[in-house]
Amino acid sequence: MWIKTSCHLDFQMQTSTPLVLMLRPRSGFQQWIAKESYTLTPYVPVVEYTDTYGNLCQRLVAPVGEFSIHTSAEVMTADEVDIDRNAYFVEIQNLPEAVLVYLLPSRYCESDNLAYLALDIVSPAQSAYDQVVCIDRWVNSNIKYTPGSSNFPISAEGVKMKGEGVCRDLAHLSIALCRSISIPSRLVVGYLYDLNPMDLHAWFEVYVGGRWYTFDPTQNEIHGRRVAIAYGRDAADVSIFHQFGAGDILTNMDVRVELLSDMLP
Amino acid sequence: MWIKTSCHLDFQMQTSTPLVLMLRPRSGFQQWIAKESYTLTPYVPVVEYTDTYGNLCQRLVAPVGEFSIHTSAEVMTADEVDIDRNAYFVEIQNLPEAVLVYLLPSRYCESDNLAYLALDIVSPAQSAYDQVVCIDRWVNSNIKYTPGSSNFPISAEGVKMKGEGVCRDLAHLSIALCRSISIPSRLVVGYLYDLNPMDLHAWFEVYVGGRWYTFDPTQNEIHGRRVAIAYGRDAADVSIFHQFGAGDILTNMDVRVELLSDMLP
Amino acid sequence: MWIKTSCHLDFQMQTSTPLVLMLRPRSGFQQWIAKESYTLTPYVPVVEYTDTYGNLCQRLVAPVGEFSIHTSAEVMTADEVDIDRNAYFVEIQNLPEAVLVYLLPSRYCESDNLAYLALDIVSPAQSAYDQVVCIDRWVNSNIKYTPGSSNFPISAEGVKMKGEGVCRDLAHLSIALCRSISIPSRLVVGYLYDLNPMDLHAWFEVYVGGRWYTFDPTQNEIHGRRVAIAYGRDAADVSIFHQFGAGDILTNMDVRVELLSDMLP
Amino acid sequence: MWIKTSCHLDFQMQTSTPLVLMLRPRSGFQQWIAKESYTLTPYVPVVEYTDTYGNLCQRLVAPVGEFSIHTSAEVMTADEVDIDRNAYFVEIQNLPEAVLVYLLPSRYCESDNLAYLALDIVSPAQSAYDQVVCIDRWVNSNIKYTPGSSNFPISAEGVKMKGEGVCRDLAHLSIALCRSISIPSRLVVGYLYDLNPMDLHAWFEVYVGGRWYTFDPTQNEIHGRRVAIAYGRDAADVSIFHQFGAGDILTNMDVRVELLSDMLP
Repeated sequence: MWIKTSCHLDFQMQTSTPLVLMLRPRSGFQQWIAKESYTLTPYVPVVEYTDTYGNLCQRLVAPVGEFSIHTSAEVMTADEVDIDRNAYFVEIQNLPEAVLVYLLPSRYCESDNLAYLALDIVSPAQSAYDQVVCIDRWVNSNIKYTPGSSNFPISAEGVKMKGEGVCRDLAHLSIALCRSISIPSRLVVGYLYDLNPMDLHAWFEVYVGGRWYTFDPTQNEIHGRRVAIAYGRDAADVSIFHQFGAGDILTNMDVRVELLSDMLP
Repeated sequence: MWIKTSCHLDFQMQTSTPLVLMLRPRSGFQQWIAKESYTLTPYVPVVEYTDTYGNLCQRLVAPVGEFSIHTSAEVMTADEVDIDRNAYFVEIQNLPEAVLVYLLPSRYCESDNLAYLALDIVSPAQSAYDQVVCIDRWVNSNIKYTPGSSNFPISAEGVKMKGEGVCRDLAHLSIALCRSISIPSRLVVGYLYDLNPMDLHAWFEVYVGGRWYTFDPTQNEIHGRRVAIAYGRDAADVSIFHQFGAGDILTNMDVRVELLSDMLP
Repeated sequence: MWIKTSCHLDFQMQTSTPLVLMLRPRSGFQQWIAKESYTLTPYVPVVEYTDTYGNLCQRLVAPVGEFSIHTSAEVMTADEVDIDRNAYFVEIQNLPEAVLVYLLPSRYCESDNLAYLALDIVSPAQSAYDQVVCIDRWVNSNIKYTPGSSNFPISAEGVKMKGEGVCRDLAHLSIALCRSISIPSRLVVGYLYDLNPMDLHAWFEVYVGGRWYTFDPTQNEIHGRRVAIAYGRDAADVSIFHQFGAGDILTNMDVRVELLSDMLP
Repeated sequence: MWIKTSCHLDFQMQTSTPLVLMLRPRSGFQQWIAKESYTLTPYVPVVEYTDTYGNLCQRLVAPVGEFSIHTSAEVMTADEVDIDRNAYFVEIQNLPEAVLVYLLPSRYCESDNLAYLALDIVSPAQSAYDQVVCIDRWVNSNIKYTPGSSNFPISAEGVKMKGEGVCRDLAHLSIALCRSISIPSRLVVGYLYDLNPMDLHAWFEVYVGGRWYTFDPTQNEIHGRRVAIAYGRDAADVSIFHQFGAGDILTNMDVRVELLSDMLP
């Protein structure tokens, strides 16, 4: 299915402010970026680099005054996510090197403190995939998904105590639980068609059965039509915009996801 | 200056054919890709990866029959290339690690055989930058630039003997001469505004004075308005399309570069 | 100065246990590994890989029963660490790409919560280097260095509240404070000559004035004779041995650092 | 089997000379470096880095006068190389990204010119592995292995014409033939037990059946007891020592490989 995504950000900069942005999705195994635009108003010089997770990052210094960023993309993406109830646990010694980092605790995923809870949650499961299903459904049932309820990340243990959170919070707790039983897990930030209210979204992936699988504890039923923008250990690594200093005010943010009725010419 | 580039390729595939493409320019220090499109007709799954030189490469299997690729980009690029007649020779021990590979001989740049010629050519020069100017002008004067005169690369020594070549050939000889006197040098493939006849173009860069500088031995006077698509040691590394097997026929290729009169909105 | 380091670990494995080890120091700008040994008893197959921080990591599965690891190295290292009271703050937009990750909060360094404290601590300082001196001395004065006081890491905020910690804890708090004012900072684990009681040690580095500088809040006066084994954002990334599962018991650990009286032959 | 390798190099430097060395084997899937020494006389500062092929490279500036390098290693290595007559051809679209570079022509392996010969040589073969056996045996039969017959590399086409060469030359021709039929192939430089006369050695590997396999056209029967020091596309990438300038004279080189009778303690 072809999707058109867009993200518009308006800032009021009180001082010139360095920004690191992650707003350019990459073509990869699961998505093909056919068209793309990335506009800065006013235009300022930008340097793009690739971080250690493979994300394309844009560095710039936003000038004083109004500053806007508009990105859009037309993307081929799958209608449904892949599911494999039999996907097996990959022994640590057989994990690809690049996957090992997703076993470690991180800023918002204190997996080192959650093993007892995780073991309890996954006890009915047969396969590693099913263990993740247990975790995903447990988070879905026990943490109330409340879009807009927080503006900055809290960590997995905080989410568990609070019992409520935004998409990122539910993903963080799920990730921490998966890692605590040695299942590699990472945060994904991106677009999801039909999200309501529309916004940027966060979900998680796990490495079982020799590949990454998608999960989303905010949804009662998982579906595709997703466009990943960035991957990381948690929200500390994946920031759609990361400003340095206190000189910026985000005055407006507008996110859209539309189906494109026809395949691109 | 804003430039719009496009490249259109039509193939007639007699068997299904694996392709590796390098047709997606990256945003970097010297160019910002504001809009971009990349269309395959018919659409087939594509996997994009980054090679060791940082180029974005697209892998796909083209199906039997007609197959077309259309890419375009709107790019902010400089009108003029930077020049610094005083840029100094960087001692080997001080070169950045990533630059060292550009000192080595490569498939079409037998720098190990050209040191005597290079030393002769650069003898009037004061700085390393000026040494490259000597090489660039020597190639410009001694190798006749004949667009369309060859369809596959010949190596630097062959170019010297033949006394004639396409843009890639002049670049290869220049690169080999630079490397033979320990100046790191790399091939660039991309677009050049006002090239006549219009086509994809190749030129070279050298690392002197702590950064890369652009040279183009096909031109009597160097200017900017260039969009780099890919970098490499020579044409063996940088192939706009690299087919495997003999099942493809390129039936049409159309390259365009236009100035965009106004800055993008 | 030539130093000989060694680390000996004895385990009693109750089940076969995957281990990831970081016990092979790399030769680099500040240290040259002239001799090295790495012995496993019993010998089991090992795969070595390089993580995203450049550390050499060894993966193996330790068998049931007694398992020992013995590593030693003869290393050229500086007597004194470099100091530059004038080293300047590097603007975010000018930081090397590989350094940016050391600005982000991480598992044990909640830099996102510590900016007010940091700004207060560094207020007397002129240069970025001096800001780090203020932080380093503040931690030295306010957090009691108590070797052996904890077996697992606590995070920077916890250290601040507890007012006491092991070397790693003092480093974590220092790192979090530095990052909270946009000074890149990383954890180093390694050997320090004359440490008392002798053990593996942890300290931190900051990126100011265009390079990394060494600090050690556990010491009243910083000196060299250090051998870095591994670098990372914090202790979550840098584990001398990381076991998966609960089947291992570390029964003995012996660390030694000696001066080698003569230069190696 | 445990092997002890050593390489001793004596130079007489007429000017101070930058060197890039590849003399530190890495622990990997097929070899474990248990002990190692690397001595420079006189000692000079060294910086070690990892090149794009994963080789550890040492950079230094050798001073005027006598300069010696002595390296040794105790290595666990297999007695026999793995063989799989059924190992299949990996379709281009399924090759790992890091393998693709080994399909390209390179300085001494003009695979773009050798496809007709290769197709003729491999015609009896059933599997990709057997195709490589055909190439390996064809080179073994048609190119006379003459250790010491050349001091600098010639390219695959030159080797074919000359009908004679050193280990590196036979490997280059084999590699070029393999690549010309889309089998990824790379040069290995290292140690081989029982080589006569003893020297550093070169052989090649091919990627078939989803992994790398070892071949050695200089030997009538392949066996193991090899220690790889460095990998690359060809000898242009893999130079045990690469000097810049003309100021060095290698006055002595001594290579040894011994079996260690007992397993290391």
